[in-house]
Amino acid sequence: MPRPTIGVFDSGFGGLTVLKSLVELIPDADYLYFGDTARLPYGSKSAATVSHYALGAIHYLQERGAEMIVIACNTASALALSAVRQNVAIPIIGVIEPGAEQAAAASKNRKVVVIGTEATVASHAYQQALAVHSITAREKACPLLVPLIEEGWTEHTVTDQVAHIYLDEAFRDSFADADVLVLGCTHYPLIKPLLRRVAPSHVTLVDSADSTAQSVAAQLKTDAISKTGEAPSIQFFVTDSVEKFQRLGPRFLGRDIPRVEHVDLQE
Amino acid sequence: MPRPTIGVFDSGFGGLTVLKSLVELIPDADYLYFGDTARLPYGSKSAATVSHYALGAIHYLQERGAEMIVIACNTASALALSAVRQNVAIPIIGVIEPGAEQAAAASKNRKVVVIGTEATVASHAYQQALAVHSITAREKACPLLVPLIEEGWTEHTVTDQVAHIYLDEAFRDSFADADVLVLGCTHYPLIKPLLRRVAPSHVTLVDSADSTAQSVAAQLKTDAISKTGEAPSIQFFVTDSVEKFQRLGPRFLGRDIPRVEHVDLQE
Repeated sequence: MPRPTIGVFDSGFGGLTVLKSLVELIPDADYLYFGDTARLPYGSKSAATVSHYALGAIHYLQERGAEMIVIACNTASALALSAVRQNVAIPIIGVIEPGAEQAAAASKNRKVVVIGTEATVASHAYQQALAVHSITAREKACPLLVPLIEEGWTEHTVTDQVAHIYLDEAFRDSFADADVLVLGCTHYPLIKPLLRRVAPSHVTLVDSADSTAQSVAAQLKTDAISKTGEAPSIQFFVTDSVEKFQRLGPRFLGRDIPRVEHVDLQE
Repeated sequence: MPRPTIGVFDSGFGGLTVLKSLVELIPDADYLYFGDTARLPYGSKSAATVSHYALGAIHYLQERGAEMIVIACNTASALALSAVRQNVAIPIIGVIEPGAEQAAAASKNRKVVVIGTEATVASHAYQQALAVHSITAREKACPLLVPLIEEGWTEHTVTDQVAHIYLDEAFRDSFADADVLVLGCTHYPLIKPLLRRVAPSHVTLVDSADSTAQSVAAQLKTDAISKTGEAPSIQFFVTDSVEKFQRLGPRFLGRDIPRVEHVDLQE
């Protein structure tokens, strides 16, 4: 099987945590990353708006050679996945189903807490995906975590307190015995150590970036990819400031981003 | 002079604090409010993108009858005011110049601290506007304040700590004796009591929403407007969720928003 080209799409920076997991797990592939930074965050936008944006970006990635698309954005996966699948012929993988599957496999009590943006929570996409596995889910919107992470306060007493407030509200009453916490936002892997400390000790953390990479590897049957020994090439496309992407992106990707191309998408 | 129609434009909700000040100060006028909620926040976007968005919204307000435009958004005023003035024939008032003028009038030490979003600060629009009045300004980006306000934590220990961190960083070294704090973001009037507590006691707060309303009143010569005794009519237009605007808007405006029209702008 020839080396695949995988298109990764996000509203901005968060999807770089998914790209990071992908590159680690599937090095024998090439990657195109599209960050729709001119229109971020998707978290506050409607399903129609997000679907429209996602389709534009995915068509662009197809034109650049993507043979498979990862929607590396919980909001876009929640709001736009079915609309996109109806309009695009290549395989599309979102971040919700893989995260839900791994959570279902990890939960003994069949009760899971999912944290995410307002739009992801309002869509109830995780609740639906987990119900398929007979899991009851409490979805908790944590709108301050993304700005705290973008401020660089990934180990900060304020972020600790905010996470405590959110998780105390989530793991209470009938969900005091929930035993899995799903990181339902691609920004959250950056505060995984903090969340690990703050969450009740009996709780297993499921990082949807990792789960998604595993799901892509399974679907690609990566064992069958020709090994050339070449490092993966990664091309980056953004709709807003290249400079800002190069400055903030490395925090999420864990490596420098030497070259980024600016793209103007017609609405 | 006949009753004027004033168009107020913002990326979202914050401009409603400016509208609130306008309606209080100039009740003998009608208002059109345009919230570009599908593309908020402008704070993370480039000057070219913001100018393009602002022009689209302002043309829409002109078509609906606006005879004067208030750009009730610090980011758009900072990044797009001159581009907009070159392309639009009716008077345009931003929020930066009025705030800078009032700050200059209030500062004895000729040193001012301005807090705002990253984009407003990066533009140095306040620094330039204050330099005209021989005032030295330190501009401090406070990216967490808007999300904290939108979370409703306007009186919260976490917001207190975050404001302390930001203001301690701003009022130090050569700016320890700065004597004015400019609220350079239209969200900040909602935490004015908290900022009053946290800022050094010798500091005067300047709220650019109030300053802007005063500047509009001066330019309109509001004393000459025919008094009909009619309450101002206000029409609202948003580019994203009407429901969310009706839910969050009243916090900023201080009154209910019974009717909102959804608008699709072609890029």
